[in-house]
Amino acid sequence: MDNKALYSLQYGVFLLGTKCGDKINACITNTCFQAANGPTRIAISVIKQNLTCEMIEESGIFTLSVLAKTCSLETIKRFGYQSGRTADKFEGFEYSTAANGCPYIKNEACAVIEAKVCNKMDLGTHMLFIAEVTDAQLLSDKEALTYAYYQSDIKTKAAVTTAGVGPEKKIKGWRCKICGYEYVGAELPDGFECPICGHPADDFEPIYEE
Amino acid sequence: MDNKALYSLQYGVFLLGTKCGDKINACITNTCFQAANGPTRIAISVIKQNLTCEMIEESGIFTLSVLAKTCSLETIKRFGYQSGRTADKFEGFEYSTAANGCPYIKNEACAVIEAKVCNKMDLGTHMLFIAEVTDAQLLSDKEALTYAYYQSDIKTKAAVTTAGVGPEKKIKGWRCKICGYEYVGAELPDGFECPICGHPADDFEPIYEE
Repeated sequence: MDNKALYSLQYGVFLLGTKCGDKINACITNTCFQAANGPTRIAISVIKQNLTCEMIEESGIFTLSVLAKTCSLETIKRFGYQSGRTADKFEGFEYSTAANGCPYIKNEACAVIEAKVCNKMDLGTHMLFIAEVTDAQLLSDKEALTYAYYQSDIKTKAAVTTAGVGPEKKIKGWRCKICGYEYVGAELPDGFECPICGHPADDFEPIYEE
Repeated sequence: MDNKALYSLQYGVFLLGTKCGDKINACITNTCFQAANGPTRIAISVIKQNLTCEMIEESGIFTLSVLAKTCSLETIKRFGYQSGRTADKFEGFEYSTAANGCPYIKNEACAVIEAKVCNKMDLGTHMLFIAEVTDAQLLSDKEALTYAYYQSDIKTKAAVTTAGVGPEKKIKGWRCKICGYEYVGAELPDGFECPICGHPADDFEPIYEE
């Protein structure tokens, strides 16, 4: 099996926001398709270890901000590279609140979808949610960010910037490009696979010492 | 709710092939994401009225040919605009057979994924399948066809060609651009929605008399 064949599937990049009690949270995801009509329902798959996943399981509501091609790496890092368990991801960040109470973003998105979970399936590493679309709005005429463009352009530019700091910088760890998991150590063990999303060492990028 | 907001989701275009008993069949779909790891599983959603859907329900196996940007409209029409109930879609068409016995195409695809259904969910209009990837191969380094490119370029060119036949051609029916359903009659009734996939009149294109 050649895992690269699976990379030919097309994905967008989304900010998945939710609210549970008084707490709001959000993470970056790349899976969503319209799964059925009458009523319109979408399917998303979320890593179960994410706090956002737990919160959606409990509250049953979420927003999906469809990120625009112009979205900054800083925003993706803010919501994708840290956990809501240890950080308030929305602190000092401008966001809007949908009718269902969940947070979404306007400036860096082209559309927002509000949804209510109507079914779910536990897939071990991920939870698959089927959710009825309760509202959907276009926010701008910006082009949507694709996962391919994120990998080839947005992340590459960031890597070039990192490389520019000079060869004397040492690698202190490795970050999974798929789910954001961070391994501490200069070298990944042979045959290493991400303990969260299962992707191989090829999908990890170095984290340099400050 | 603005349905156009849902169009900002990113999709590929796939040939979904299956085998049931001695019969092979395939249809065009646009939904697939990797849903989980360990083992790798994908999610697809298929219109229940499609013969391909019925056959997958029975046999539990399928292939997904990830179509390339260079895929011809003729191939998409062959598999997407007619039913396997009334036509042998593979007649006179060059195809390959995967290890699981299901048909796939090489020339107009960039990858093929073989899968075995491990779970399903009935969503009324559609059946959602979760399937374990049993094999996956890259077939070429061609760029994958996106649903957006199919709508903006491949179909537009076809429309221009159709328009070129002259204004004297009369409209004899309307075809749903989403699922291929054909309505017979020169005008769609007010407030018409596709009886198969639920999409509105905006998503229909004219069928001209020969």
